[in-house]
Amino acid sequence: MPAADPKFLKYVDEHEDAFIARLKEAVEIPSVSGNIEYVKDVENMADWLVAQLTDLGVKAEKRGIGKHVLDGKEVDLPPVVIGSIGNDPAKKTVLVYGHYDVQPALKEDGWDYEPFTLTPDPKTGRLYGRGSTDDKGPVMGWLNVLEAHKNLGLEMPVNLKMIFEGMEESGSVNLDKFIESEKDKFFAGLDCMCISDNYWLDTKTPCLTYGLRGVNYYEIKVSGPDRDLHSGVFGGTIHEPMTDLIILMSKLVSPTGEILIPGVKELIAPVTKDEQEKFEKIHFQMSDIQGAVGGDQTLTDDTVVTLMGRMRNPSLSLHGIEGAFSAPGSKTVIPCSVKGKFSIRTTPNLGVKNTTELVLKYLNDEFKKIGSKNRCEVSLGHGGEPWVTDPNHYNFRAAHKATVAVYGVEPDYTREGGSIPVTLDFANILGLNILLLPVGRGDDGAHSTNEKLDKSNYINGTKLLGSYLYELAAEKKD
Amino acid sequence: MPAADPKFLKYVDEHEDAFIARLKEAVEIPSVSGNIEYVKDVENMADWLVAQLTDLGVKAEKRGIGKHVLDGKEVDLPPVVIGSIGNDPAKKTVLVYGHYDVQPALKEDGWDYEPFTLTPDPKTGRLYGRGSTDDKGPVMGWLNVLEAHKNLGLEMPVNLKMIFEGMEESGSVNLDKFIESEKDKFFAGLDCMCISDNYWLDTKTPCLTYGLRGVNYYEIKVSGPDRDLHSGVFGGTIHEPMTDLIILMSKLVSPTGEILIPGVKELIAPVTKDEQEKFEKIHFQMSDIQGAVGGDQTLTDDTVVTLMGRMRNPSLSLHGIEGAFSAPGSKTVIPCSVKGKFSIRTTPNLGVKNTTELVLKYLNDEFKKIGSKNRCEVSLGHGGEPWVTDPNHYNFRAAHKATVAVYGVEPDYTREGGSIPVTLDFANILGLNILLLPVGRGDDGAHSTNEKLDKSNYINGTKLLGSYLYELAAEKKD
Repeated sequence: MPAADPKFLKYVDEHEDAFIARLKEAVEIPSVSGNIEYVKDVENMADWLVAQLTDLGVKAEKRGIGKHVLDGKEVDLPPVVIGSIGNDPAKKTVLVYGHYDVQPALKEDGWDYEPFTLTPDPKTGRLYGRGSTDDKGPVMGWLNVLEAHKNLGLEMPVNLKMIFEGMEESGSVNLDKFIESEKDKFFAGLDCMCISDNYWLDTKTPCLTYGLRGVNYYEIKVSGPDRDLHSGVFGGTIHEPMTDLIILMSKLVSPTGEILIPGVKELIAPVTKDEQEKFEKIHFQMSDIQGAVGGDQTLTDDTVVTLMGRMRNPSLSLHGIEGAFSAPGSKTVIPCSVKGKFSIRTTPNLGVKNTTELVLKYLNDEFKKIGSKNRCEVSLGHGGEPWVTDPNHYNFRAAHKATVAVYGVEPDYTREGGSIPVTLDFANILGLNILLLPVGRGDDGAHSTNEKLDKSNYINGTKLLGSYLYELAAEKKD
Repeated sequence: MPAADPKFLKYVDEHEDAFIARLKEAVEIPSVSGNIEYVKDVENMADWLVAQLTDLGVKAEKRGIGKHVLDGKEVDLPPVVIGSIGNDPAKKTVLVYGHYDVQPALKEDGWDYEPFTLTPDPKTGRLYGRGSTDDKGPVMGWLNVLEAHKNLGLEMPVNLKMIFEGMEESGSVNLDKFIESEKDKFFAGLDCMCISDNYWLDTKTPCLTYGLRGVNYYEIKVSGPDRDLHSGVFGGTIHEPMTDLIILMSKLVSPTGEILIPGVKELIAPVTKDEQEKFEKIHFQMSDIQGAVGGDQTLTDDTVVTLMGRMRNPSLSLHGIEGAFSAPGSKTVIPCSVKGKFSIRTTPNLGVKNTTELVLKYLNDEFKKIGSKNRCEVSLGHGGEPWVTDPNHYNFRAAHKATVAVYGVEPDYTREGGSIPVTLDFANILGLNILLLPVGRGDDGAHSTNEKLDKSNYINGTKLLGSYLYELAAEKKD
């Protein structure tokens, strides 16, 4: 029995066109955060959002969070837009997050549509445009929910606080500082949080996401001679940095993806019964990954092993080498200094610090074994912690019920193989249970050409976000 | 007792300035063969050479050798300049080779001098300019010898045939075809050959060079997915091409430079007593290579082992990877297709064909062991055979005596670690003993900025080339 007010659901169905028009307006503002040419558009987008929110009864404002250097020029960081509506101590208070900036996009990148014009395809129901799914669609979803309640004269079931940033696609610079500084002010009194900025695993099954892998990016620098050398003249006389580096890189991961760094495997958390069940229930076929990869290179034919390989186990990828010959053709160079790059996707218990200690010790030991006269330096480029939260928290139970009510199916419980760093900032600083509640599908093409959001996902997504708030209000706190 | 006519030696000493002026004229023609903008200059250089040779009593001409595509435009290949002087059946007939084209050079590349103006440094005696040592200096040396004999009314001690090409710095395209087509015409009746286009091993000791390593350039292509993938999403689920490639590359050469491809080591020719003695006599200190490398990365402290590693033993260098991430910074990509590049410097018995068979078999076997679902393809990019000739041939004995006469020291007997492909063309097609008789020093910086030729090397080099002809005339054929 759905907890959402039937009038709300009816309103959403009756206002599809207006909601699409709202998304169209948003997509038309090219709020690209990573390019100096769009600084004004990003600011305009923030103003547009504040105006919309205010119009919908939200106490909204822009907040400056400092400056940064963009394309060599110091400019203001895109402001954070915050808003709150409702202040009833009897109600739960939920924080929602989204971002109003987008990835760059040019028609000539290979788009079939103008990227900054929302273009519906009437046959498929897809709404094409940059930001349609990442993340303007979900943000408009929250606005649609607010509009329905305002126009119907319905009271919101929870107190709602919102934070929409304009720098997500460019590293969320200073957002952590903002959260820290507003911890006991704007962010005071929160019960839980919802981030809608990821995707279903496939194209059919709604999901709730309760974990993210971390990522540690490492560089192995091997150097010796003070200049590049000709292999005809020096081949066979010296310790070549590339030889040493390739040996070290070959000792990191087996062909079947096993991490060879002693101590790493041992840290992987054992699979609990609840986890195992959640993974077994995920709607996933091997053909899904084969289609995405464009070939049959999977390590196994077992769907659960594949999903755990992607979501709950660490992995190590070798990305490339800087300083070596990398162009087409041939060059008989002995590079004097080379940097091998690899990263480890980490999972609970594999923190940045303890994983890095294992990596450094192992590679330094292995380099000693080589007995080379070159120098070797291993360093952590950047590290992001893994994150996992309790998927049985009332926050998730509410979203589960909302999903069943809107879509008529039980959601998959997934984790993302990649990282969403802001999640960690909110989790660590505010200590909240965070629900990742995606609106779009796995094939939406965020960051890619022809980014889209299916109309049904946009409209049902609006219902889902609203219903989630109702279920949350109804749910008993643990 | 030097065989050279003392009048010749005296003439050289008295005409230093005129000889430097000749080199200056030659350097001023920017005969860069690898750039469409210099096509006319290359042609002018050939005309200048023909005019000089004709003026010196040589029957000289330009010969077209076809067309090629340069910077996207079809143009004539630089002509070959050939000349002959003397036709006495009682005398030996020697072929000399040089090239009149040069590497590109721009002042802004970091030159301290105008590259196409010969600039003497009175303090050091160095003559700076592109082509000064590679290879206009040696070519002018031959012209100086001719001038001395003409002006002194001296008869040349041998019949001299000359070939100067204008495409050496750009692959000597079609030169092999020209040699083949003129084998029984211009190249008929030759006794031996002298190429002056390499350098002393150090800066003090003249040398004669009797061998060149070959080079086989290989590519290992590993591919799987049909697009690059994100390591967050796919890390831990598929066979990654980079993992496979790095494992294969790690199995090619040990940190101490030992080639790990079965069968290669076994083919290396045993060191003869004569070879051992020649290597032991080479003037070489470990500090020479340490200086050139800019560090102490040598595999050994033994000079003979080092020299053999450079000159007479095969070596394998890993050059780099195409298709992987190679820029500064970090990118969490799983490249879908990567090409590892390596080359083997080869020595006698390690032909292109048999070495390649060993390489292909080994890598294909090792790839099977990996058990990957990716595809692997190993291919030979280009192959050049090794070359070694008899250093005790009368051709070398003559050069040995000339060196002692001019420099007062015994020459080192060296081999080059790199390849000079034209040597093989002449050796294979004409079946001649070829002497590589360098004029310049090991620090001349051919192909580099501030290329130079020491005045003493230029003047003594002229004496050396002339004296060699006299010694050759006096030497008993084997």
